[in-house]
Amino acid sequence: MGVVSQSEERIDDLLWRNLKIIQNPNWFCFSLDAVLLADFLLLRPGDRVVDLGTGTGVIPLLLAARLRNTSIIGLELKEEVAHMAERSVSLNNLNQQITIKVGDIKEASAQLGKGSFDLVVSNPPYAPMGTGKISLSPVKAAARTEVYCSLKDVIREGAALLNSEGRFALVHRPARLGEIISLMRDYRLEPKRMRFVHPMLGREPNILMIEGIKNGKRDVHILPPLFIYQKTGVYSEEMAAIFQGKILKEEW
Amino acid sequence: MGVVSQSEERIDDLLWRNLKIIQNPNWFCFSLDAVLLADFLLLRPGDRVVDLGTGTGVIPLLLAARLRNTSIIGLELKEEVAHMAERSVSLNNLNQQITIKVGDIKEASAQLGKGSFDLVVSNPPYAPMGTGKISLSPVKAAARTEVYCSLKDVIREGAALLNSEGRFALVHRPARLGEIISLMRDYRLEPKRMRFVHPMLGREPNILMIEGIKNGKRDVHILPPLFIYQKTGVYSEEMAAIFQGKILKEEW
Repeated sequence: MGVVSQSEERIDDLLWRNLKIIQNPNWFCFSLDAVLLADFLLLRPGDRVVDLGTGTGVIPLLLAARLRNTSIIGLELKEEVAHMAERSVSLNNLNQQITIKVGDIKEASAQLGKGSFDLVVSNPPYAPMGTGKISLSPVKAAARTEVYCSLKDVIREGAALLNSEGRFALVHRPARLGEIISLMRDYRLEPKRMRFVHPMLGREPNILMIEGIKNGKRDVHILPPLFIYQKTGVYSEEMAAIFQGKILKEEW
Repeated sequence: MGVVSQSEERIDDLLWRNLKIIQNPNWFCFSLDAVLLADFLLLRPGDRVVDLGTGTGVIPLLLAARLRNTSIIGLELKEEVAHMAERSVSLNNLNQQITIKVGDIKEASAQLGKGSFDLVVSNPPYAPMGTGKISLSPVKAAARTEVYCSLKDVIREGAALLNSEGRFALVHRPARLGEIISLMRDYRLEPKRMRFVHPMLGREPNILMIEGIKNGKRDVHILPPLFIYQKTGVYSEEMAAIFQGKILKEEW
């Protein structure tokens, strides 16, 4: 990690349970998508969790604060990004609960152990190779485009990491829904819960959250749509509640 | 067709473009689902269309009235139901445009011709075998439960009937979404447009409409959700517009 990039880091308030996060705006900042996923997924006491492609570590931080009795590994390909995430973990005194590891999603189950986890989550790059421009910054490119790992890699390794009846939760673009569902089912991750997120009532969804259960029965449960804004610049009541951790607090 | 059942038939007004439909409430009546599907799917002048499991013939009637320059085959397993649908076609003077045929969905492409159609639509039975009670009435059982044909049969035959880039449109239960998408993709019907129908804002969807394109590219387009009611007993503006054929009229 170069001195130059570290000097451009900033510490942001996650505005929830006093969590802080270190971010480097030259790379990327955590997105709403990660917060939505952390809200969407089911979490049980004792869960052993892996976040594939953890980036800033925002998902492990939110999940750790959501339920103390969990242990979470954040796997990150880029060493300098992993180090930044590690410093965020320390800043929040969550080192007992969260471990950041440098590693490749494509080899995640070989590195971390097959069938060893209860929950695998991921906010992977959304753009397939061959679509759109690829960022010249390797860190940005890794976060946005499937340069280092494909959707198939994420789903295959997610399935391999999970024990039977383990859960797999993904946030992605609705445009990829067809591939996501057929890949998940190819790897015996039966889709069970889905939620579409729309910018506003009457608009098409731009975010999809999906949870599958390894070796689960066929039965998809689609939640009511989530609308981010009730009007331009004003969050919907539900979105405001998510930001306030209102829904999550019940589990605390 | 027994005299008894025919005597219990009634003629209903489809409340749209003066269409009438003959129904026998002892069997089943056309559902909102069929009207929603007829509204959802794309229709082009000259389209050769097949409706797999046409029942009362409601979908062919709506599509024929929606666009005159189309030819539509309604395939129905039960002879007595097919005869009733045929009489509805005659009642509306649509015999030039609609042909009702007695036949088995499982052999539809052998009967009607492989690769010969532009659009295949279906409102198939929703319940898989082994779930819930099967009606003692063979006609009701055929309409509700996959007694005579499975989801896989509908999708396989739909794909076989279509020419390349032909469209396949289905109305079904959201709970079956996983199977629907992976079966469609197995038969090279790439999901392209989807819409979820919710009884009301804040409620889970209970109807799914999906359109796929044979040999299409991967890219799912999810429409804004449709809400049936704005409050108990009051249709939403969009639903009222669908009933009034407001949206469809543009194509007339």
